[in-house]
Amino acid sequence: MKSWHEECGVFGIWNHPEASRITYLGLFALQHRGQESCGIVSLNNKLHIHHKALGLVADGFSESVLDRLKGPTSIGHVRYATTGDNLLTNAQPLTATLKEEPIAIAHNGNIVNTKSIRKNLQDRGAIFQGTTDTEVLLHLLARDSGSQFEDRLVNSLVQLQGAYSLVILNSEKLIAVRDPMGFRPLSLGQLQKEDGFSWVVASETCAFDLIGAKFVRDLEPGEIFIVSDGGTRQLWLPKSPKKAQCIFEHVYFSRPDSIVFGQGVYDSRKNLGRLLAQECPVKADLVVPVPDSGVAAALGYSEESGIPFDLGIIRNHYVGRTFIEPRSNIRSFGVKIKLNPMSSILKGKRIVVIDDSIVRGTTSKKIIGLVRGSGATEVHLRVAAPPTTGPCYYGVDTPSRSELIAANNTQEQIRQFVEADSIGYLSVEGLFKAVKATSQSYCAACFDGKYPTALET
Amino acid sequence: MKSWHEECGVFGIWNHPEASRITYLGLFALQHRGQESCGIVSLNNKLHIHHKALGLVADGFSESVLDRLKGPTSIGHVRYATTGDNLLTNAQPLTATLKEEPIAIAHNGNIVNTKSIRKNLQDRGAIFQGTTDTEVLLHLLARDSGSQFEDRLVNSLVQLQGAYSLVILNSEKLIAVRDPMGFRPLSLGQLQKEDGFSWVVASETCAFDLIGAKFVRDLEPGEIFIVSDGGTRQLWLPKSPKKAQCIFEHVYFSRPDSIVFGQGVYDSRKNLGRLLAQECPVKADLVVPVPDSGVAAALGYSEESGIPFDLGIIRNHYVGRTFIEPRSNIRSFGVKIKLNPMSSILKGKRIVVIDDSIVRGTTSKKIIGLVRGSGATEVHLRVAAPPTTGPCYYGVDTPSRSELIAANNTQEQIRQFVEADSIGYLSVEGLFKAVKATSQSYCAACFDGKYPTALET
Amino acid sequence: MKSWHEECGVFGIWNHPEASRITYLGLFALQHRGQESCGIVSLNNKLHIHHKALGLVADGFSESVLDRLKGPTSIGHVRYATTGDNLLTNAQPLTATLKEEPIAIAHNGNIVNTKSIRKNLQDRGAIFQGTTDTEVLLHLLARDSGSQFEDRLVNSLVQLQGAYSLVILNSEKLIAVRDPMGFRPLSLGQLQKEDGFSWVVASETCAFDLIGAKFVRDLEPGEIFIVSDGGTRQLWLPKSPKKAQCIFEHVYFSRPDSIVFGQGVYDSRKNLGRLLAQECPVKADLVVPVPDSGVAAALGYSEESGIPFDLGIIRNHYVGRTFIEPRSNIRSFGVKIKLNPMSSILKGKRIVVIDDSIVRGTTSKKIIGLVRGSGATEVHLRVAAPPTTGPCYYGVDTPSRSELIAANNTQEQIRQFVEADSIGYLSVEGLFKAVKATSQSYCAACFDGKYPTALET
Amino acid sequence: MKSWHEECGVFGIWNHPEASRITYLGLFALQHRGQESCGIVSLNNKLHIHHKALGLVADGFSESVLDRLKGPTSIGHVRYATTGDNLLTNAQPLTATLKEEPIAIAHNGNIVNTKSIRKNLQDRGAIFQGTTDTEVLLHLLARDSGSQFEDRLVNSLVQLQGAYSLVILNSEKLIAVRDPMGFRPLSLGQLQKEDGFSWVVASETCAFDLIGAKFVRDLEPGEIFIVSDGGTRQLWLPKSPKKAQCIFEHVYFSRPDSIVFGQGVYDSRKNLGRLLAQECPVKADLVVPVPDSGVAAALGYSEESGIPFDLGIIRNHYVGRTFIEPRSNIRSFGVKIKLNPMSSILKGKRIVVIDDSIVRGTTSKKIIGLVRGSGATEVHLRVAAPPTTGPCYYGVDTPSRSELIAANNTQEQIRQFVEADSIGYLSVEGLFKAVKATSQSYCAACFDGKYPTALET
Repeated sequence: MKSWHEECGVFGIWNHPEASRITYLGLFALQHRGQESCGIVSLNNKLHIHHKALGLVADGFSESVLDRLKGPTSIGHVRYATTGDNLLTNAQPLTATLKEEPIAIAHNGNIVNTKSIRKNLQDRGAIFQGTTDTEVLLHLLARDSGSQFEDRLVNSLVQLQGAYSLVILNSEKLIAVRDPMGFRPLSLGQLQKEDGFSWVVASETCAFDLIGAKFVRDLEPGEIFIVSDGGTRQLWLPKSPKKAQCIFEHVYFSRPDSIVFGQGVYDSRKNLGRLLAQECPVKADLVVPVPDSGVAAALGYSEESGIPFDLGIIRNHYVGRTFIEPRSNIRSFGVKIKLNPMSSILKGKRIVVIDDSIVRGTTSKKIIGLVRGSGATEVHLRVAAPPTTGPCYYGVDTPSRSELIAANNTQEQIRQFVEADSIGYLSVEGLFKAVKATSQSYCAACFDGKYPTALET
Repeated sequence: MKSWHEECGVFGIWNHPEASRITYLGLFALQHRGQESCGIVSLNNKLHIHHKALGLVADGFSESVLDRLKGPTSIGHVRYATTGDNLLTNAQPLTATLKEEPIAIAHNGNIVNTKSIRKNLQDRGAIFQGTTDTEVLLHLLARDSGSQFEDRLVNSLVQLQGAYSLVILNSEKLIAVRDPMGFRPLSLGQLQKEDGFSWVVASETCAFDLIGAKFVRDLEPGEIFIVSDGGTRQLWLPKSPKKAQCIFEHVYFSRPDSIVFGQGVYDSRKNLGRLLAQECPVKADLVVPVPDSGVAAALGYSEESGIPFDLGIIRNHYVGRTFIEPRSNIRSFGVKIKLNPMSSILKGKRIVVIDDSIVRGTTSKKIIGLVRGSGATEVHLRVAAPPTTGPCYYGVDTPSRSELIAANNTQEQIRQFVEADSIGYLSVEGLFKAVKATSQSYCAACFDGKYPTALET
Repeated sequence: MKSWHEECGVFGIWNHPEASRITYLGLFALQHRGQESCGIVSLNNKLHIHHKALGLVADGFSESVLDRLKGPTSIGHVRYATTGDNLLTNAQPLTATLKEEPIAIAHNGNIVNTKSIRKNLQDRGAIFQGTTDTEVLLHLLARDSGSQFEDRLVNSLVQLQGAYSLVILNSEKLIAVRDPMGFRPLSLGQLQKEDGFSWVVASETCAFDLIGAKFVRDLEPGEIFIVSDGGTRQLWLPKSPKKAQCIFEHVYFSRPDSIVFGQGVYDSRKNLGRLLAQECPVKADLVVPVPDSGVAAALGYSEESGIPFDLGIIRNHYVGRTFIEPRSNIRSFGVKIKLNPMSSILKGKRIVVIDDSIVRGTTSKKIIGLVRGSGATEVHLRVAAPPTTGPCYYGVDTPSRSELIAANNTQEQIRQFVEADSIGYLSVEGLFKAVKATSQSYCAACFDGKYPTALET
Repeated sequence: MKSWHEECGVFGIWNHPEASRITYLGLFALQHRGQESCGIVSLNNKLHIHHKALGLVADGFSESVLDRLKGPTSIGHVRYATTGDNLLTNAQPLTATLKEEPIAIAHNGNIVNTKSIRKNLQDRGAIFQGTTDTEVLLHLLARDSGSQFEDRLVNSLVQLQGAYSLVILNSEKLIAVRDPMGFRPLSLGQLQKEDGFSWVVASETCAFDLIGAKFVRDLEPGEIFIVSDGGTRQLWLPKSPKKAQCIFEHVYFSRPDSIVFGQGVYDSRKNLGRLLAQECPVKADLVVPVPDSGVAAALGYSEESGIPFDLGIIRNHYVGRTFIEPRSNIRSFGVKIKLNPMSSILKGKRIVVIDDSIVRGTTSKKIIGLVRGSGATEVHLRVAAPPTTGPCYYGVDTPSRSELIAANNTQEQIRQFVEADSIGYLSVEGLFKAVKATSQSYCAACFDGKYPTALET
């Protein structure tokens, strides 16, 4: 069970009679990528109309709001703050007027040289309204002297380092961009309509499934894909010698029913479980996942090991944004709000608990305590990823290194802390193998410490 | 996947320093039993304080509201309307003042002779504020001439026919009641505190798990359990020759981690799946549940049949109360909001789809279409319950008989309608066997048509 | 400047295509009679639709709410709580279903034998939902055995003592009632429409002015005026030997532009000022009203005395329901929020300050302090009513006798308390003369202690 | 009765333990200057905290909001949009971070060369968030290279033309500025506290009255008054050969209890009435003001002419922001929502109606119709200002010239349009005389067409 928060999701559709409603649906499918705020911008007769709200998509948008978001082209964004505070000011798509031309930007990722660019811009008189890293791109665009929007965009983007999957809307074009290293996913699709099809772009393919669009292909790292009334065209940012696709999208972030970086996420997770069974076998009676994120890996572990699988821990899905805790000391209360182990399943058995990854270790400790308290005779923790030893700087909201249990403890120390009978992590090699990736095409810095870019201090 | 709505959940706690917060948690654990409205009444110095809200418990109560609900004793209710409209007026616990004595009633179930009692009371000048069946009990209590509250309560209850699990609070006592046939569950527990323990009562034992209380026993059918400063006592309603515990609590209603009518619900559902595999075998490559309600039965079916289990359909849990649909015609849109089949799992395989029960058949038809559209070569529908042939009059919100597909069609007709390659239902005998029940102790009227009470027309 | 709060206002209209909107306007014109809650009930095809809200009419009703209040007949109510708490539960019109027949009641006034009737009803099993005195009428109606609604109504009303101007709506009739002593005003009007006119009824004639209706006549004390599709008819309650029309409606309550009990309120107030000038003359340079309630009397005082009138105190009308005070000690802060004296007018002059009445004396003291602080050389307080020596039990929210300064102090003591150079009150004879009334037709109990009914302790 | 909307009000206080609450009160007293939005910024340990809201001050700020606005220095703003839309984005004080230094600006007035400055800034890459003219000042400040804030401020201000009374807060100083022509008022005061006094600055002196501060003096045109921990200092903008104080502040804008440009507003208005009586006498029985804005002038007219004064038209002060109109055609409905003429006063009399000014003439026409409909035998309209012939470009929201009745019609044509028996306007000479002003020190462009600055097309 993950305590890392998710990043952001982006969506866009060009020239469809129900653009804002389709965008609403697309964001709904991407809701797992950000629950703090959401926003949609529509383009109607060269003017932008927007609506942003704190909270979930289904709460933030009403029929009347969507009716107001007229126009055949829309982009949208769901956000969990990775930089900046959670103010509506920082909600995206960011909107502005550049020389009376409206622009809106939806951004997934994190730009690592924000600080120095921001300072430079401020020294030249730029006024920042919010604290998001995305706002520097607006100012670079506003100040570039290129005559065409595409020129100004390329001139601005080459100054950015780090992760950015962007959906941009001006008065004439919908533009999708993936940074040269390709940190975050971004996919192209086509939605049938009466007279042909509409181009759609989304962070994950599960958005295409919901709206009934066909998944065409991923945007390439460094690709700028432009849709306008005149058709589509491609531009390219300078090629990066290395790709840095985020392996954590497969481990935890993306929805299991998405195809990310060319592979189904559910399949990746079952592979992670299978390889984990090979690398860290154990004699036991039952494989039990920490739901929902550990289910696929647990099925893989069960298949490979032959140990039966069962849902020994039940998850309550009604948990909202805020939850009022009792003042009295109820054992493992925080975990029990979501998870309830069933002693009828667990009692008297040797249990393999499968989790997707471990951050601080405190949740794992509580889960193991609950499972043992339900009568399990042995509890073996198996983690379907390597030890998490480094924070992410590319768009995942991780705690600092000092809080990562694996950055500061041996596996045996972790085992003792979580009070498991044994512990096993997948190897980095196993990780790459499971997603059929190489270290040349993926970033696994949170697991192997190899950060693909320089970092500002 | 169920389209029947759930009924109600009740909770109460006597003499605990955090009564309203514990009640809040208890209702949270019972949220699956009703999402339309919620309410808590606290008893503080012989006076009642209450708060009711539309929607979910986590949204309806804030820290400040719970602080206002002072006092060591509280009862609570979550509701899905089975009778009456969804107005806050009908939210429970119902509160009133009977001769300046405050009373609050939380009710799970449905009283089948409401209409005639209500008419009789109105003819005698009673003014009804809402439309719930529970309000007739208030008026019977107000008009009874018994000198003791307990006398008036028994005098009133014996006039009611049908299903009622009640938690009642007056200025001195917490009273739990289960009707003589025992339609709905109601369990007693004890929550440790510094100086001993507090009695708790809840619709399901999963509420005890969350608050860390010990499950003591079920209330017996016909039992009135009274807690006051003087301790506990029992009264009994006239004994019924027949019990009518709702078998549908095991099939769908209750949470899998609850123990209901003496048996774990998850175990019951796995049994349903195992017996279904015995009764309706099929040659196939994969057993796939309709999540979440079909998962346990699918695991049972897989175990018994030896056909591998996989989560071939992914569920999105972000669905809120209202969802805005597109105007254009997206295939199987309503189902896709919640469920997305994965072709990487399903393609080229013979699939057994396991659902908990079938009501109208329209959802099953869409699911089968999605599974087939994902590349399954054969789709066999197996239903972990008998055909649903009759509506429920005891607290479950079922459509009328004319809308129940199994009440009006043969199995072969149903198979054709849902477009499955084969269909199989569990037998009524299998149903009773799975929950280790007999037709003397259970009501299965929705499946076998044997209604345990007379019904008003 | 009055610190007494106002009572209630009622309105009704029969058979007009814009019934709910006209009622909204009528309530708006009666807003000064109650600002705590407001409500409208409409009759559409024999069914009632209602909406109630806390706060002002203009805030509580939207276009969409009024659109929902369909139907050609509506009644409405604005309320300041004279009995009961300010809960929405107590907001009026009260609505209920009596033997499946809808009824709604809007009530202005206060029934003085509520307590004993309520106890008797509770002993017979009646359940009260709120704390208003109006609810006893509902229960009396529900329990009466008369075969016709009119019979039940008369049977119920004769049990009530005290003040009630009522507008009642059932499924077939709009009924206006004024109690036999006629405490509160209630007027009949006719609103032209395409095909004839619609009957309207309102607490004050200013409501007719706004909607463009013609004022026809006051309801008589004891009159029951019934409008239905069959036309109008009259019934009569048993005649009272004495009338008790509230003289305070002229002194303070009613709007100056209303005609109440046969006389214009503005004229009454100018008369009060003129007679005050005759009874309590003083040598001074300027007559200054406490705005807005003292303006008419000040103009009368000025006319009669020949001393010039000027608005030496300016009133700020932006004061809302809640106002946040500073923690530091600003002199006379509470009064200054509303009133600002102008030294350019007051400096160096002998000022006669005219107020409508004095309750506790604390506000008067602050006003006189402000006027003196603005440079007035002398400040003479003249009160356009007699000393207030008794609380009202008939629908005016007055403080208890112990808080009324004139009930416990001589005029000289009051003068010293408010720090005026002289003080003068109008005599009771002057009061009756000003409104052209006699003690046989009016209640002036708050001034002369002659309560027209028995009072429950 | 004015249909022109008001402009803005500003307030500031330096070093007071209740700064935000005092600012709240100050804005409350200035509420008549703007009701669309309000805002307060506090300075706490060199950081800004702000809160802005749509609507009235009393609705937009709660105790908890004011508690959050910690810190000993605050500035505030109430706004009616004179440029830009009514979005919260445009609510003031405007806040920004200039090279990590917080700045907040509250502005009353209108800058007439906004368009050209804005275009120039946009060409140099400036991104505008809203549409207010004030935002250009932020950008000029951000881009100026002066080393001291005061230098940058002067460098920026000299580029602005038009009207600006400013209260500015950075991390160290509270700065009050009045433009060189002194269009809008701005006054300095001192509020006593335990250890000395706090400087306060406000658009009008009525704010000082409410908080109990002493009015010290007006800021001079062109003066920059700076308060910091080091004390106060003055800077001066280049001197303007002409002053252009807005005469309309006396005619309508300012509260009657304020002293504006050295003279009491109430006195000015009585003078306007007296001079109007001299210039435009008429034989009549009664002088009746259009309340509230015409009252002072009517008293002056009455005094001078000897014709008695009476409040023949009653004003309802409950009018909120939105009001739902009936669909049916009620005569003069829009005016009747606010004003009700009393036939008991008006019937059979020759009436002089006094209004403060006339814009479109439509409201005057309705009022005269109502007065005549109440039985007046003659209705003579007297306007306490000259004909309004030009729009204001300096901060007053006037309609375009084509909508101004006096810009396009003779007095006789106006008389016929409003259906008065006679009409009389004050002369421009009378206007200047009433406020004891000269055309060298005042702007009366809306009346005499002499605009004191160049205007952008």
